[in-house]
Amino acid sequence: MERSYYNPIEVAPREDLRILQLGKLRKILNKVYKKVPHYREKCKKAKIKPSNLKTLEDIRHFPFTTKEDLFVDYPFGLLAEPLEKVVRLHTSSGTTGKPKALFFSKRDIFAQAHLIARSLYMSGATFRDILQNSMTYGLFTGALVMHYGAELLGMLVIPAGPGNTERQIELMQTFGTTCIHMTPSYALYVASVIHEKGLKPGKDLKLKRAYLGAEPYTDETRQKIEEMLGVDVYNCYGLSEMGGPGVGFECPEKKGLHLWEDAFLVEIVNPQTGEPVKPGEVGELVLTSLNREAMPLIRYRTRDLTHFIPEPCSCGRTHVRIARILGRADDMFIVRGVNIFPQQIEAVLMSIKGVAQNYQILLEGYDEMTVKVEIDRDFFDGRIERLLKLKEEIAEKLRQAIQVRPKVELVEPGTLPVSEGKAKRVIDNRTL
Amino acid sequence: MERSYYNPIEVAPREDLRILQLGKLRKILNKVYKKVPHYREKCKKAKIKPSNLKTLEDIRHFPFTTKEDLFVDYPFGLLAEPLEKVVRLHTSSGTTGKPKALFFSKRDIFAQAHLIARSLYMSGATFRDILQNSMTYGLFTGALVMHYGAELLGMLVIPAGPGNTERQIELMQTFGTTCIHMTPSYALYVASVIHEKGLKPGKDLKLKRAYLGAEPYTDETRQKIEEMLGVDVYNCYGLSEMGGPGVGFECPEKKGLHLWEDAFLVEIVNPQTGEPVKPGEVGELVLTSLNREAMPLIRYRTRDLTHFIPEPCSCGRTHVRIARILGRADDMFIVRGVNIFPQQIEAVLMSIKGVAQNYQILLEGYDEMTVKVEIDRDFFDGRIERLLKLKEEIAEKLRQAIQVRPKVELVEPGTLPVSEGKAKRVIDNRTL
Ligand SMILES: [Zn+2]
Ligand SMILES: [Zn+2]
Repeated sequence: MERSYYNPIEVAPREDLRILQLGKLRKILNKVYKKVPHYREKCKKAKIKPSNLKTLEDIRHFPFTTKEDLFVDYPFGLLAEPLEKVVRLHTSSGTTGKPKALFFSKRDIFAQAHLIARSLYMSGATFRDILQNSMTYGLFTGALVMHYGAELLGMLVIPAGPGNTERQIELMQTFGTTCIHMTPSYALYVASVIHEKGLKPGKDLKLKRAYLGAEPYTDETRQKIEEMLGVDVYNCYGLSEMGGPGVGFECPEKKGLHLWEDAFLVEIVNPQTGEPVKPGEVGELVLTSLNREAMPLIRYRTRDLTHFIPEPCSCGRTHVRIARILGRADDMFIVRGVNIFPQQIEAVLMSIKGVAQNYQILLEGYDEMTVKVEIDRDFFDGRIERLLKLKEEIAEKLRQAIQVRPKVELVEPGTLPVSEGKAKRVIDNRTL
Repeated sequence: MERSYYNPIEVAPREDLRILQLGKLRKILNKVYKKVPHYREKCKKAKIKPSNLKTLEDIRHFPFTTKEDLFVDYPFGLLAEPLEKVVRLHTSSGTTGKPKALFFSKRDIFAQAHLIARSLYMSGATFRDILQNSMTYGLFTGALVMHYGAELLGMLVIPAGPGNTERQIELMQTFGTTCIHMTPSYALYVASVIHEKGLKPGKDLKLKRAYLGAEPYTDETRQKIEEMLGVDVYNCYGLSEMGGPGVGFECPEKKGLHLWEDAFLVEIVNPQTGEPVKPGEVGELVLTSLNREAMPLIRYRTRDLTHFIPEPCSCGRTHVRIARILGRADDMFIVRGVNIFPQQIEAVLMSIKGVAQNYQILLEGYDEMTVKVEIDRDFFDGRIERLLKLKEEIAEKLRQAIQVRPKVELVEPGTLPVSEGKAKRVIDNRTL
C-alpha cells in the first residue's frame, strides 16, 4: 500500500501532537473562560482557572460540558463570538422538546470540511470519485458537512438526500456513483433492493466505498454490506456538537477509527465517576474542540461508549484510535436486571446464516423481550423443522451473549418497518 | 437611500459591460465549439462558427440550446470539462421521466454564490442577518445555491428545509430569523398559520425580508405577503440550467429584476419564430452562461415568459431589468380557444377583498373551467346574499381579464390542498 497523506499532521510524532494540543487547549480555555459566563461560573465553582493548566493531563480538573449545559441561556448562551460571526445553525434532536442549537463560523465550517476531505482521502477517495450523499440535508449535520468536505476534495457530489430507494439506485446507475454516504440500516435496505432487482453490484454498478455513520452498527453488519454491495465500508464518527461527521474515521486498516487530535482533545472516562479509564477499558468518549471559533465546547460528554486501541496503527498515522461506538449510554435498556445494548443483539443476529437484514426488539408485559427477525425467504418453504431449528439457534446464541433468553419470532423479508434514517430498533411497551 | 454595492460591476457603464460580455462570449463559444461535439455539430449544420461572432448581436445566428439538447448523450454529453473537474450534480425534473442533469465545477459553485451574495446585499441584507432557508435541500438548486451565497455574505443560515410549519415558526421565534427564503405559495400558507396563532409579526417575530422564487406569482400576492408578515418581499429568479437562484434579483426599487449581465447574456425572443422581440414586448427569455466552466449553455431557451424594462433603474445599477416572470410557456392552458396563464387568474383573485390565500383551477367535462377559491371565514355567517355577490364579482372580473367566464366555487380557508413546495394550481380532467 502506498503511503500518501492529505495533511502531514496525520503522521506527526505524538510528542509534537501533544505540544500542539497543549498550545491550542490553553488558547481555547482562555477564550471560553473569558467569553462564556456560564462556563466561567462552572470553573469558579470548581475553583479552577485556565492558568492552572500546566500539562494536557490537567484538563481532568476542569468541568465537563454536558447536554444540559447546552440549554442554559438557550439558544445563544455558549457562543464565544458575536452572533454576527456565525454563518450556520445546526440542531440535534434532544430527548427534551427543544433541539440542541450548535453554531458555526465560516472558519469552523471550513476547518470541518478539511477534516472530512482528509478522512475521505485516507479511505482512498480522490477528485475522480463520485459521492452519492444520501443523508438528510438540512438542520442535521450529517449531509451538509460531508457535502462540504467531499466538495473540497473535488469529488463529484450527488446531493441525493435519503429515501426513494428506486431513485437512489437509478442515480447510481446513471451517474456511475463510486461512493455512498448513508446510515448502515439504510445501506442494508438499499443492498437488499439492489439484489431483489437482480442487479450485480460489481457489474451493473461502480460502487467502491460506503461511508456509514450516524448510528452504531456491528462488524457483522459491515461484512454483510461489503459482501452484498462489493464495497469497502468505512466507519465514520461525528456528532453535531463537535461539528458533525469528520471527528473520526477509519483508515484502510479498518481496525478502529482515528480521531483527529489536531482538532480534538480526546478523553474516555468512566460514565459514573468521570475519572479516566485504563487504556483499553470501555467508557464514555469526552471531546474538547481545539479549533472551534464560534462555540467551543470543553470536555463535552458525548454519551458514546468506546475504548482506546492503544497499539500504534500500521497505516502510519499517529492519531489515537478508538473502537467503533459500542452504544450510546442512552440506548442501553434493562431487561430482568441486565444492561443490554441493541448492538449486542445485532452482532449475534448478523453472525447467523439465514438471518436477513432487518430486526426489531420488543419489550412488553412485565418484562418480556421478543426479538423479531427477518430471515431469508427460502426458509418459508414448509419445512417447519428447519425453521424451528433456526429459531432455537438464535434464542440460544442471544442467551449466551446477553444472559437473557428472549422470545424469537421469525418473519419474511420486508415484514418489519424499514427505516430510511436512523433505525428504531427497540420498542418498549412494558407496563412496568 | 445610501448607495452601496457588493461589486462595482453592478454600476459599470453599459458600454463597458458590453465589451466585457463580447470578450467572455467569444471565449465561451470557442470552448463549447471545441469541447462539446453535439454543439459543434449544431453549429456546422447552421453553417456558423465562433469566429463569425464580430458583435454581441451576432449571437442571434448561433443555434439555441433547448431542453431536448440536455438529453443528447445523456448525462455527460454537454460537459466542456473532464468529469474530474465537476464537484456538483443538480437535477431538474423534466416533463419526461429522466431529470435534466446539470454539472458544476468548484469555480461555478463559487461564482454563483457570489451572484447570490451580491443579490442579497442589494436587498439590504448583511452579515448581521439570519436567513431561514425553507427550500428543499438536495438535488434541486433552490436551497443549496442560496445557502452558499448567504454563507459567503456572512449571514447566519438556518438550513430549515421545507414543511413542518409549526417548527418553521418556532425556529423564527427561537433564533430571531430576519429573512426567509421559500416559495410564494408556502409563504402565504406560513403567513396564514402565523395569523391563526395570533402572533404579531412586527412584535413576536423579527422578519424583515422574504426572498420568494421557484414559481411565478403576482404583485398582488407579494403585497398580501408583505402586509401579513410585515416584510419586504424580493422576487428572485433562477433556474438549475443557469446555476439556480441568483440569475436575477429585485433591487429595492422593486420594479423588475436586474439580470446580472457580467454572468449572463440576455435575450428575449418570440417563442414561435426565435427572433428578438421589440423592447418591452413579451417573449421567451434566452440565456447564455458567460462564466460557466463545467457545462456552459449557449442561448438556452428557458421557457419563461417576460419582457425587458427598458428604462434605466433609479437604483443606479446598469444591468438589464426584466418584468417578473409572467408564466412558463409550458404552464399555459387553453380553454375555449383562449390562452390562459394561472398567473392571470391569481392576479384577479388577489385584488379582490375577501379572498383568502388559496385557490385551484379545475378543468372538466368538455371544456368547463371552475375556479375554487378560499375566502375569509366570516363570509360563512349565513348571509347568503353577501356570498353570492362576492361570487358574481369574482366571476365577472375573471371574465374581463381572461375572456372566459368560469364557474366559481367559494370554500372556507383550509379546504383546498396546501402545497409546501410548488403549488399545483391547475387540475385538468377534461374528456377532450
Ligand atoms: Zn490507521
Ligand atoms: Zn435597480
